[in-house]
Amino acid sequence: MTSERLLKDIEFIVELDKMKSILRQTSLIDNSKRENDAEHSWHISVMAMVLSEYSNQDIDLCKVIKMLLVHDLVEIYAGDTFCYDVEGNKDKMERELRAADKIFGMLTEEKGKKLRKLWDEFEEMKTKEALFAASMDRLQPLFNNYFSNGGTWKKFDVSKNDIYKRIAPLKETSDELWDFTKNMIEDAFEKGYITRE
Amino acid sequence: MTSERLLKDIEFIVELDKMKSILRQTSLIDNSKRENDAEHSWHISVMAMVLSEYSNQDIDLCKVIKMLLVHDLVEIYAGDTFCYDVEGNKDKMERELRAADKIFGMLTEEKGKKLRKLWDEFEEMKTKEALFAASMDRLQPLFNNYFSNGGTWKKFDVSKNDIYKRIAPLKETSDELWDFTKNMIEDAFEKGYITRE
Repeated sequence: MTSERLLKDIEFIVELDKMKSILRQTSLIDNSKRENDAEHSWHISVMAMVLSEYSNQDIDLCKVIKMLLVHDLVEIYAGDTFCYDVEGNKDKMERELRAADKIFGMLTEEKGKKLRKLWDEFEEMKTKEALFAASMDRLQPLFNNYFSNGGTWKKFDVSKNDIYKRIAPLKETSDELWDFTKNMIEDAFEKGYITRE
Repeated sequence: MTSERLLKDIEFIVELDKMKSILRQTSLIDNSKRENDAEHSWHISVMAMVLSEYSNQDIDLCKVIKMLLVHDLVEIYAGDTFCYDVEGNKDKMERELRAADKIFGMLTEEKGKKLRKLWDEFEEMKTKEALFAASMDRLQPLFNNYFSNGGTWKKFDVSKNDIYKRIAPLKETSDELWDFTKNMIEDAFEKGYITRE
C-alpha cells in the first residue's frame, strides 16, 4: 500500500509540471521565445552556485538554492506578474498568498510548512540568504535583456531609475556584483537598450 | 575593473540560457509541448527536495540538488540522447566528455573543477547521492509518461523490460519509492500505456 503521504507528494510533483507553461515577460538571449518559470528557476539556481562567492557575507548556499527552486511556485495559480506592471502589482501579494496556501497545502502539513517557510523567507527579503536569492532572481532578467540588446527594457520602455530600484537588493549583498551591474546598466543606457532616465 | 574571474562567470551564465532550447523526448503531462533540459533539471531538483525522505540511507540533499542542477549541462553541446536510442547511445559518453571539457572549461580552473566533480560523480553513479540523483532523473519522465497516458512509452513502443532496466537505480536507493514505481509500471502495462513485455 502506498502511504497517503507519498500520494500527496506525487500529486504535488505532477502539479509542478505546470510551471513549464507559466510564461514570463523575459525572452531568451537568442530571442527565440519567452522563458517560463521552470526555466527561470533553474537558471537562477545555477547562478547562485556560480556567484555565491561574491556575497559580502558568508551565506548558506543550500538554503538560497532551495528558496530559488520554490520561489515561483505560487505563479502556477497566481500567474506571473511583470515587475514593472503597476496595476498588476496592486493585488499581487493577495493573489500569491492565496496561491501559496493552495500549492503548499497539497503536501502533508509538516512538509508543506517547510517549503512555505522558504517561500515566506524569500518574500520577506530580510535574511542574508533571502537578499542573495532575490538578487539572483532580479539579476538574471537583466543579463537576458542586456545580452539580447534591450529585451523587455526596450519592449516596455522601462526607465533606468526603475531598473535601479528593482536591482537594489544586490547592492546590499555583493559589492563586486553591484559594481559590475551598475556598469552594465550604464552601458545599456549609452547603447540605447534603455532609453529613459 | 571587473575581474577576469567574474567575466568568465558571466559568460558561463549567458551560455546556460541555451539549456532552455535543448529539447528532450519527454512531453509535458498536458501534452502541450516537449520539455527542455532547463525545465527538466528544475523539476527533478524540486523532486529531490520532496522525495529525499524516502531514501533508505541518509543523503546529503544539497549535493544531490547541485548534481541535478548541472547534470545535463553537457547537452548544450552534445544534445539530448534519448535513453532508449541504441544507436545514439554508442558514442554518447565520448560526445559528453568533450562537451564537459568545453562547458566546465569556461570557468576558472578551481570553479570549473568543482562543478565537473559533481558531474563526474553523477555520471559514475556510485555514491548514494549520485544514485538518488539518478533515480530522480529517471523517475520524472516515468511520471510524465504515466500521467499523460503513455507519452514516449507509447510513441517509441518501449518495452516494460527496458523501462525496468532504466529505473533500476531507484531499487537501490528507496524501498518505498521502488514499490510505488513498480506498481505504476505494472498498472501502465495493464492500461495499455506500455504495450510490449
